[in-house]
Amino acid sequence: MIEGADLRSEVERLARKAKEASRALAAVSTERKDAVLARVAAALRSAESAAVLDANAADLAAGEESGLSAAMLDRLRLDRPRLEGVASALEAIVRLPDPVGQIVESRRLPSGLSVGRMRVPLGLIGIIYESRPNVTVDAAALCFKAGNACLLRGGKEAFSTNRALAAIFARALADEGFDPALVTLLPTVEREATLAMIGLSGVVDLVIPRGGEGLIRFVAENARVPVIQHYKGVCHVYVDASADREKAIAIAVNAKTQRPGVCNAMETLLVDEACAEALLPPIAAALIERGVELRGDARTLALVPGAKEATEADWDEEYLDLVCAVRIVRGIDGALAHVARHGTLHTEAIVTESYANAERWLREVDASLVAVNASTRWNDGGELGLGAEVGISTTKLHAYGPMGLAELCALKWIARGEGQIRG
Amino acid sequence: MIEGADLRSEVERLARKAKEASRALAAVSTERKDAVLARVAAALRSAESAAVLDANAADLAAGEESGLSAAMLDRLRLDRPRLEGVASALEAIVRLPDPVGQIVESRRLPSGLSVGRMRVPLGLIGIIYESRPNVTVDAAALCFKAGNACLLRGGKEAFSTNRALAAIFARALADEGFDPALVTLLPTVEREATLAMIGLSGVVDLVIPRGGEGLIRFVAENARVPVIQHYKGVCHVYVDASADREKAIAIAVNAKTQRPGVCNAMETLLVDEACAEALLPPIAAALIERGVELRGDARTLALVPGAKEATEADWDEEYLDLVCAVRIVRGIDGALAHVARHGTLHTEAIVTESYANAERWLREVDASLVAVNASTRWNDGGELGLGAEVGISTTKLHAYGPMGLAELCALKWIARGEGQIRG
Repeated sequence: MIEGADLRSEVERLARKAKEASRALAAVSTERKDAVLARVAAALRSAESAAVLDANAADLAAGEESGLSAAMLDRLRLDRPRLEGVASALEAIVRLPDPVGQIVESRRLPSGLSVGRMRVPLGLIGIIYESRPNVTVDAAALCFKAGNACLLRGGKEAFSTNRALAAIFARALADEGFDPALVTLLPTVEREATLAMIGLSGVVDLVIPRGGEGLIRFVAENARVPVIQHYKGVCHVYVDASADREKAIAIAVNAKTQRPGVCNAMETLLVDEACAEALLPPIAAALIERGVELRGDARTLALVPGAKEATEADWDEEYLDLVCAVRIVRGIDGALAHVARHGTLHTEAIVTESYANAERWLREVDASLVAVNASTRWNDGGELGLGAEVGISTTKLHAYGPMGLAELCALKWIARGEGQIRG
Repeated sequence: MIEGADLRSEVERLARKAKEASRALAAVSTERKDAVLARVAAALRSAESAAVLDANAADLAAGEESGLSAAMLDRLRLDRPRLEGVASALEAIVRLPDPVGQIVESRRLPSGLSVGRMRVPLGLIGIIYESRPNVTVDAAALCFKAGNACLLRGGKEAFSTNRALAAIFARALADEGFDPALVTLLPTVEREATLAMIGLSGVVDLVIPRGGEGLIRFVAENARVPVIQHYKGVCHVYVDASADREKAIAIAVNAKTQRPGVCNAMETLLVDEACAEALLPPIAAALIERGVELRGDARTLALVPGAKEATEADWDEEYLDLVCAVRIVRGIDGALAHVARHGTLHTEAIVTESYANAERWLREVDASLVAVNASTRWNDGGELGLGAEVGISTTKLHAYGPMGLAELCALKWIARGEGQIRG
C-alpha cells in the first residue's frame, strides 16, 4: 500500500490525468456519450457482471465479519435484480437531453449582438460517498453525460464492489474510444487520499460529499476546492390553524411514512396551537397506526397520550426511521422561528388554507424546496422534472436542491456579432 | 488597536450581527430598499459628503507621503464630479428590477403541483477589494438590493474614505428603519481581520475578492467559505484565416485601446499563419498608430518591424496598458491550444467568416464570455443587460461572467399544491 507523500502524489497524478481527459469531452456528441452508458448497462446484464457479484460477495463477507448491521449489509448487497435496477437507471440517463451546449437566456442586444448563456462542463468532479455501491455507476454516468470527468471515493465497506463497477465503466469507455481515466476510482479509501483529492485547487473543479454529517464536515473543513454539500434533512411539516384536516393527515402520513429512510422525509411535525386540539389527535392517530413513534413537547403529550417526551435534541434529529418529533407552536411566526433554528435548508412544508400564510412560508423559509399543501417527499430530481440526480444540495450557491445534469454544468456567456465594438 | 484573538472575535461579532440583520431583508419591499439607496445618493450630493471629501483628502495626503504612484492616487481620489457619478450609479441600481422573489422555470407537474424556482438572498456577502473607494457604495448597494447584508474590506490606502462612505450608508439605513449592521466595514484592513472574515463558515455565505492576483490567491487558499474569484483577464482576439479585414482591425483596436486598463481589454492578439502576411501588418499599424507597444514572436517580428521581441512571460501578462502581445498560430487548433494554456477564463474573441470555426470557438473555448466577431469589451454586466455588477467572475460555479443582482441571489425550489402526496 502506498502512503503519505507517495499517496498524495498518486492522487494528484490520477486527478490530473482525469482532468486532462475531460478537456476533449466538451465537444463530443451526445450519441457517442450515450453509447458508453448503453454499453455499461449491457455489461451489467451480461456475464461481465459476475466480477461485480463476486467482489460484492467478498465485501459482504468482510462486512459480516466486521459486524456491520443488517441494514448496512442490505445497503451494500448487489444481486441480479439490483444490477438490473442500475442498468435501467443508466438507460434513463441515456434518455435525458444532453445539457452540454444548451443555450439559455438568448437575446439580441441593441447593438445587434446576439448574446446567451451556453451550458458547458465543469471539468473534473470529485464525488465522495458512503452509501450503496450503485452510486459508483449513477454518479459516474451523470458526470460523464454532462461532459465531466469524475474522481470517485466510495465507502470502505464497498471498496471491492466499487472497483469492479468502475472497471466495467472504464472498459466501456475504452471500447467506445474514450480515455478510461474519465471515470477514476481512488485506489484507497484512506482519509489521506480524500484529503489529497479535496486539496487539488485548480485541478478538481467541484467536490460533492454525500453521506453522514461527519464526512461532510470533514470535507467542508478541509477542502481547497468548491464543495456542494448534500447534507442531512431535518424536514418539517407545519400544520397551520387554517389547514384542511384531510390534507394535513395525508401530507403528514406521506411525508413521514412513504419512505422514512430518505433525506426528504418529515422528521418533525409542527402544529399551530390554534388548531392543535382539533387536528393533532387525528394526525397523531394516523401516524401511530402506521407504526410511527411520536416524541412530543409537553402540550403534545397532553393531547396525544401515546407520545413519548421529546428532549431538546429531538428537534435536531434526523431519525430516518418511523420516529417523529411533534411540537405545538404559536402560529406561523412560531413555526418560522422553529424552522429557522432547527431546519437544515432541505425541505419545509406548510399545510394551510390561508393565502397570507402560504405566501409568507414561500418567501420567508430558507430551504432548497419550500412547499405549500404538498408532501416533503416531492423534493427529488425525478419528481421535479430534472431526471436522475447526484443528490439534493443544501448549499445555496450554484445548485440549491436536486442536482441533475444541468447542475453539473456551468453557464458561460456567448456573443455572436458582425463586427460589433464598444463606443 | 485590537489584535490577535480579540480582533478575530470582534470580526466574528460584527459578521454575526450583520448576518442576523440580513434575515429580515428577504421579506422587505423593493420600495423600502430603494428608499435607502435614494437617500445615500442624496447624501452624496449634500453637505453630508463633506466628511467623505475630508477623509479622502487625508487618505490622499498619506498616500502621497508613502509614495503612491500618480495612477494609484488618481484611483483613490474623490471629488464632486466623482461623487456625482457614485450617486448616479445608485440611481441606476434603484431602476433595476428587484431580484428577490422572482420566479423562474415555473411549470405544472403531472400531479398538478406547480413548481418553480424563486430567487432568494444568499445572506451575508463579504467583499474584499483594493480598488477605488466607490466600490464601497456600489457593492453595498447591489448586495442590499439583492437582500443581502455585506461585510466590506476595502483597500488600505482608502480606509478613511471608505469609513466615511460606509457611515453615510449606515445613516441612510438607520433613517429608513433598517439595521445599520447590514453594511458593515471591517474596522481594520489587517490581514488577520481578512483571515477571520473568510474563515466564518456558516456565517459568511460568500466571499468575493476583487483585486490583484496576490490578494485573490490569499483568499482562495485560506477561505473556509465559498469564494467567487474575480481574477485577472488575459483576453485574446484570434484573427482566423477567413477573417474580414475591416472587422479584424476594428475589433483588435477596440479590444486593446478603448479602455486598456480594464480586465476585458485584449492582452494578446493571435493571428492565423494563413492570413498573417495579409492581415497582421494593417492590424499592427492601426494599433501602433494609437500608441500601442507590440511584443511579438519571431514570425511577428518579421512582418511587423516596429514590434519588440516577446518573451515566454508575455503570454501570461495582464498589461492593463497600451501594450499588446502578438503571436502567429497554426489555424484555429493553434489558437485554441494557446488560449487553453494562457487564457484566464475571462473573455476570448475570434474574428472569422468561417461557420465551422465560429462554432468550434463557441463550443470549445472555456471562458466567461466567448465571442465571435465582437470586441472583448462587451463582457460587462451593463452591456449584457444585467445592469450594474460587482465584477466579472472567473469562477465557473454559481456565476461565470458579470455578477449582477441575480447572481447575488440563490434559487430555491417552491411547490404549490392542493394536498399532493407521493405514491
